Amino acid sequence: KLAEMLSSQYGLNVFVAGLLLMFAWAVHAVGVGKGHLLSFLITLMLIQLLWMLWYVGRSYAQRRLIREKDTHAGARWLRGSITLFAAITIVLGCFKIGYFVGFAECLSATEGVFPVAHSIHTLSQVYFLWGHAKDIIQSFKTLERFGLIHSVFTNLLLWANGVLNESKHQLNEHKERLMTLGFGNITIVLDDHSPECNCTSTALCSVISQGIYYLYPFNIEYHILASTMFYVLWKNIGRKVESHPHPKIQFRFHGVMMGTAVGLTVLAITIGVVAVYLIQIGRSKTKSESALIMFYIYATASLMLMVVAGLTGVWIYRTQETVLDESKNPARKLDSDLLIGTASGSWLISWGSILAIICAEEHPAYTWYNLPYSILAILEKYIQNLFIIESIHRKPERYNEDIRTLRVMAICSRNPAPLTPSCQKNGGTGDAASNSRELSHVLNGSVCLRESREQNQENNPGADGSPSSLPTNTKRKILRNIAAFLFLCNISLWIPPAFGCRPEYDNGLEEIVFGFEPWIIVVNLAMPFSIFYRMHSAASLFEVYCKT
Amino acid sequence: KLAEMLSSQYGLNVFVAGLLLMFAWAVHAVGVGKGHLLSFLITLMLIQLLWMLWYVGRSYAQRRLIREKDTHAGARWLRGSITLFAAITIVLGCFKIGYFVGFAECLSATEGVFPVAHSIHTLSQVYFLWGHAKDIIQSFKTLERFGLIHSVFTNLLLWANGVLNESKHQLNEHKERLMTLGFGNITIVLDDHSPECNCTSTALCSVISQGIYYLYPFNIEYHILASTMFYVLWKNIGRKVESHPHPKIQFRFHGVMMGTAVGLTVLAITIGVVAVYLIQIGRSKTKSESALIMFYIYATASLMLMVVAGLTGVWIYRTQETVLDESKNPARKLDSDLLIGTASGSWLISWGSILAIICAEEHPAYTWYNLPYSILAILEKYIQNLFIIESIHRKPERYNEDIRTLRVMAICSRNPAPLTPSCQKNGGTGDAASNSRELSHVLNGSVCLRESREQNQENNPGADGSPSSLPTNTKRKILRNIAAFLFLCNISLWIPPAFGCRPEYDNGLEEIVFGFEPWIIVVNLAMPFSIFYRMHSAASLFEVYCKT
Repeated sequence: KLAEMLSSQYGLNVFVAGLLLMFAWAVHAVGVGKGHLLSFLITLMLIQLLWMLWYVGRSYAQRRLIREKDTHAGARWLRGSITLFAAITIVLGCFKIGYFVGFAECLSATEGVFPVAHSIHTLSQVYFLWGHAKDIIQSFKTLERFGLIHSVFTNLLLWANGVLNESKHQLNEHKERLMTLGFGNITIVLDDHSPECNCTSTALCSVISQGIYYLYPFNIEYHILASTMFYVLWKNIGRKVESHPHPKIQFRFHGVMMGTAVGLTVLAITIGVVAVYLIQIGRSKTKSESALIMFYIYATASLMLMVVAGLTGVWIYRTQETVLDESKNPARKLDSDLLIGTASGSWLISWGSILAIICAEEHPAYTWYNLPYSILAILEKYIQNLFIIESIHRKPERYNEDIRTLRVMAICSRNPAPLTPSCQKNGGTGDAASNSRELSHVLNGSVCLRESREQNQENNPGADGSPSSLPTNTKRKILRNIAAFLFLCNISLWIPPAFGCRPEYDNGLEEIVFGFEPWIIVVNLAMPFSIFYRMHSAASLFEVYCKT
Repeated sequence: KLAEMLSSQYGLNVFVAGLLLMFAWAVHAVGVGKGHLLSFLITLMLIQLLWMLWYVGRSYAQRRLIREKDTHAGARWLRGSITLFAAITIVLGCFKIGYFVGFAECLSATEGVFPVAHSIHTLSQVYFLWGHAKDIIQSFKTLERFGLIHSVFTNLLLWANGVLNESKHQLNEHKERLMTLGFGNITIVLDDHSPECNCTSTALCSVISQGIYYLYPFNIEYHILASTMFYVLWKNIGRKVESHPHPKIQFRFHGVMMGTAVGLTVLAITIGVVAVYLIQIGRSKTKSESALIMFYIYATASLMLMVVAGLTGVWIYRTQETVLDESKNPARKLDSDLLIGTASGSWLISWGSILAIICAEEHPAYTWYNLPYSILAILEKYIQNLFIIESIHRKPERYNEDIRTLRVMAICSRNPAPLTPSCQKNGGTGDAASNSRELSHVLNGSVCLRESREQNQENNPGADGSPSSLPTNTKRKILRNIAAFLFLCNISLWIPPAFGCRPEYDNGLEEIVFGFEPWIIVVNLAMPFSIFYRMHSAASLFEVYCKT
């Protein structure tokens, strides 16, 4: 306990100090330059590298010892996606090195060292997570706790750094658009836009500086994923696991045509809408307005579909009385906390829009489209969180069936009632319709008495209209379709804000009501969480899909 | 699980919407007045009142049923302090009504309705918490969850409202001081300072408007305490408790002369320092500087003492190998999370000061005193958190002894070794010196073999110099002294920021480095947490004191 507190407080202090340094840089504090911030980050990364080397070396030396593994942590899809994002982060690193070479005259040396250090850090971190993400460290070495918490907060700081750069870029773009639209009354200072000297080869440089900002979203996701994996490792230190064999989760693709088709359609439309939006916005007042209206209509429609899908999913779960898996599990708890915590970020923006629409003194036509969009955005996250959290607290079906069979066997063998043979037969085959209610009967101990009634019901399924009379396979199919659809929709909704399509900036209403600076602060604080929410819920939905 | 998520998301949405409304008011958003904010808060309080009525009525109707109680929740000292703070909050309400009557011409009606509603709300909430703080609600009614989470976030919003008013007032005072000192270069707008019309009786009004701000700190504490109590209630819904008899904690006052004396001295000095500071600051440049230096020297000295005391405490705990109480306990988990979470707020300010001192271009003499103060402020919270968390995870001594006796009995009766009689004798008497190490031997099952050696050691205590050879009573006495001293010191350190002695504003260095606005934002965000940290750690230390 003491070691846990020691290390968590150390980590928080590193984080707080780093955040302040970033804040100081962002507000142009006297005497704090980009160089200071970058050297601080480089130092942190070096410490983490040394620790990882030590840990890998030590566990290599002790590889004879069989270590316990947390089967829930570091799932394959997680490691897969982290590898993908890491690869893009390394590409980003190369771009940055190119950028540094181009502007070498007027950039400080740290700006060249940073991408190199960052790439090395990324490579070794991914290697480390592939090999050790499932470890449960049993020795209560303080050094291990400190190293892990240090890694968590180093990644969080790198994440914050990415977010800050991305926000500055977005803000600059927004200000440029405002200048084109002729808002002269706001004092516009482009912040940290481009170095003072000329690039040695102009064409290359403009490609690179354009390209960098399309790669940032992936870099941001990479760091947040890495820090959650380290956090789970840290939480797992010293945990005792009941080593029940975790049923292998696998990806199957039959029977989800419907969900996938609708989801892919939404995805395709999204890409179209974003392209049109980015071309139209800021050209002229009418073009901007039509782009905004188009975006709102598209987003409202897709959110509506998602709400319906989510509600259906929750409703199916409610009518299905499976046992919930209430065991302690840091990885899962973190998942649901992250979902709700990051959803709060986007709720902040949505409530801001609603408040602005209510309080504004004049309403141009296009602002009204904002109201249903904001309300639906709140509602959709609310329902989707319920759906995901319900899902991840359920045990996979096959596992359930095994337990059920075992229990039926046990009960029947203990009280050999007259109906025992039919009971054992049923327990062995594990048929469809009575899945859900049977377990509760088993728990009552009266399964053998009601057995005949159950079997009667099975012979005419769909007699009553309630979904509990749907065969489990159909239900499962529907759930898988919903999960696939929501997965694709979340990816679709991740694209617009991540790639610079941010109506919260462009519609102007909130800026008038709250004032330019306050609203920019709100959006810049909340937007990273909102973007992360989409990515994280997509990941969770993928897990739900594989488990169902 | 679903109900938990439903209600927590509802609560978060209420909270986010309320925060935005407050933010909008604070930044003078177009169309958002104080009236809107207050009517929103009144509505929330009314809903909570209705829910509490329903709950009290229902539990009165069902009073025959014996309900389970969580013995850890709603301790007597907690209910006592909440009553005290609530009483002051009602006085504040009366002041506000008086203020409204005085300025009735130019204030909106909501400003009169709000204090009345607030007082009624306070009274019934305290009554509710006295009666029901220990309840463990076993029926999984959604309405109960929603009501509790609604109460949590209503109190949090009222807390935020108090904090906002207090910050505005502090900021105005700070700006007035700056004007006196002749900083004309910062555009100074006094914000929401006084109504436009004249008071009907000027003397009374000025007393009231002065007095109000001395009562705010208590109001703020009241709401945060109430919301933590409701949160524990919410977390306890549906929990199973193992009903082990909780040893009655009682307050004893012998043998802590030393700690209390030093603590009271610090408290007395604090009050003197704060009085001198508030008189001197802002009078002239030299007077301000000498006040700052005095404050830093005083604070550095008391923090140093606290660090030493805390370190001693942690060291004693480390050498004492008692079993930790690892059982699940929402009240305790919340306590330690709150300690660490709110400490982060003050760490933010301290790191800001450190960064400012490092980066500043010119250092007037008095700024150097700031550096040790900031470093010690970080260190002191770090160590104090360790001490408190160690303490609250220990079972009270007597309880330990009971368990030990039971176990010794059990083991000895199971393997009747040759030494059984001496073993039972020892288990029965429960003597002092071997308390700590004995249990671990018992767990090894080899207690009966080592028994004779242990008894030899008991006969010459203090043979080796390690503190584990100190008799337990001495150790306990030292720990009680430390807890008493830290308790009084935390109250001392709570006083300066709560009553307007804020060197972070007045020393000016951070404002130069970060800029006026950014630093004001940082301080205003972090200061409420910093103040709450002191109050909360004092409360925790009081608990530690009673338990040791």
